Amino acid sequence: MVRILYELCGAEPDRLFSAYSWRVRLTLGLKGLEFENRPTPFTKVPSVADTDHNRVPVLIDGEKTVVESFDICTYLEDTYPDTQTVFGGAGGRENAALIDNLIITGLYPTITRMIVKDIHSQLAPPDQTYFRESREKRFGATLEDVQRGRDKERQRFQTFLKPYRRRLEEGQFLGGDKPLFADLALTGSFCWAIATSPYDTLDGDELMHSWLNRVLEACGQSAALKRAT
Amino acid sequence: MVRILYELCGAEPDRLFSAYSWRVRLTLGLKGLEFENRPTPFTKVPSVADTDHNRVPVLIDGEKTVVESFDICTYLEDTYPDTQTVFGGAGGRENAALIDNLIITGLYPTITRMIVKDIHSQLAPPDQTYFRESREKRFGATLEDVQRGRDKERQRFQTFLKPYRRRLEEGQFLGGDKPLFADLALTGSFCWAIATSPYDTLDGDELMHSWLNRVLEACGQSAALKRAT
Repeated sequence: MVRILYELCGAEPDRLFSAYSWRVRLTLGLKGLEFENRPTPFTKVPSVADTDHNRVPVLIDGEKTVVESFDICTYLEDTYPDTQTVFGGAGGRENAALIDNLIITGLYPTITRMIVKDIHSQLAPPDQTYFRESREKRFGATLEDVQRGRDKERQRFQTFLKPYRRRLEEGQFLGGDKPLFADLALTGSFCWAIATSPYDTLDGDELMHSWLNRVLEACGQSAALKRAT
Repeated sequence: MVRILYELCGAEPDRLFSAYSWRVRLTLGLKGLEFENRPTPFTKVPSVADTDHNRVPVLIDGEKTVVESFDICTYLEDTYPDTQTVFGGAGGRENAALIDNLIITGLYPTITRMIVKDIHSQLAPPDQTYFRESREKRFGATLEDVQRGRDKERQRFQTFLKPYRRRLEEGQFLGGDKPLFADLALTGSFCWAIATSPYDTLDGDELMHSWLNRVLEACGQSAALKRAT
């Protein structure tokens, strides 16, 4: 049986940059579950697999098709109980849903504003058209104008990072001795930025960069991250 | 054996208002562990129990003295494994430490700025002197001036609350079907505000108020919260 993961990609198929796809890739890696990936540019997403769900990641695991990154992580946790845990039990799973919300509401909008034009530069022409139209409509501004304010955005981002930094001053991972969902979801978000933009959203923060590399390493995914230069 | 909890109080001994003491009270309540409380005003804190630790809460459990709210919750979880869990397992405990950071860095400073003068009004004269001096030094401004900007602060507070609200739109508690540490720590923070100030830091938010009352109820502590009017 071949396990297949559909992930977002740029003009280059190995330019994997979706934060949501990354957290699934990291989960699979942490659990030591092998998979083949199917890099999928924006405009090909609607035709992925046999699903009418129009987003990636999509995981095909034998007979089973699973969508939505959080649900895929939950599926993997339940289906492969002998692999390394990403939730650490029932309470950890409930907390993970809360931490997911913290990342979605607090981090995604901020990182988007720091790299939105750089993402555009990584896409193939038809995807660029789709991306510019949909994002400029959402922001009510050009990609260039949104990204122009990124130094200020990065300063404000320090407030978001503070509780995570505090935690990493005490231990190796947000999950303590081992990575948990919080580590994978947050790392996935930074992979999104690192793969598409040379701009360091972490502003040279050694503590955060070391942690990020530790998570990639623990999941065996360091080499899969193609860094934008 | 009598279990004793030292908690911060105002001019009235039943005006219990420390966010940190409250989370321990809620944990004891959730676990059905009986205790006697020792209300302690600010200027009496240094003389509490036989400890040179100059903060409350302090829990005396038989022979054992435990300080620091997070450590007390951990102690109770480990010492009374047959009671209702506040962490929900190892992963939940690691996440709780992260959530604790989120509350300490993101919520405490904000709530303080909304109610700091009102807290002062709830204290006995010697505590008022201590409180005004220490807080005005910290803020570099009078209590009155700090609190004056609270309507704007409350608007900004919406951003902090967003991920928690999202979670509560899906379920009864942040912990899912039952309260977990995130519920107790966040509720404790609002008890601090409600006990000292008539100003609604939640700005009439029905979803949040209902959840708050559910947590107090689940911990059997509704009656212990003396609301400032």
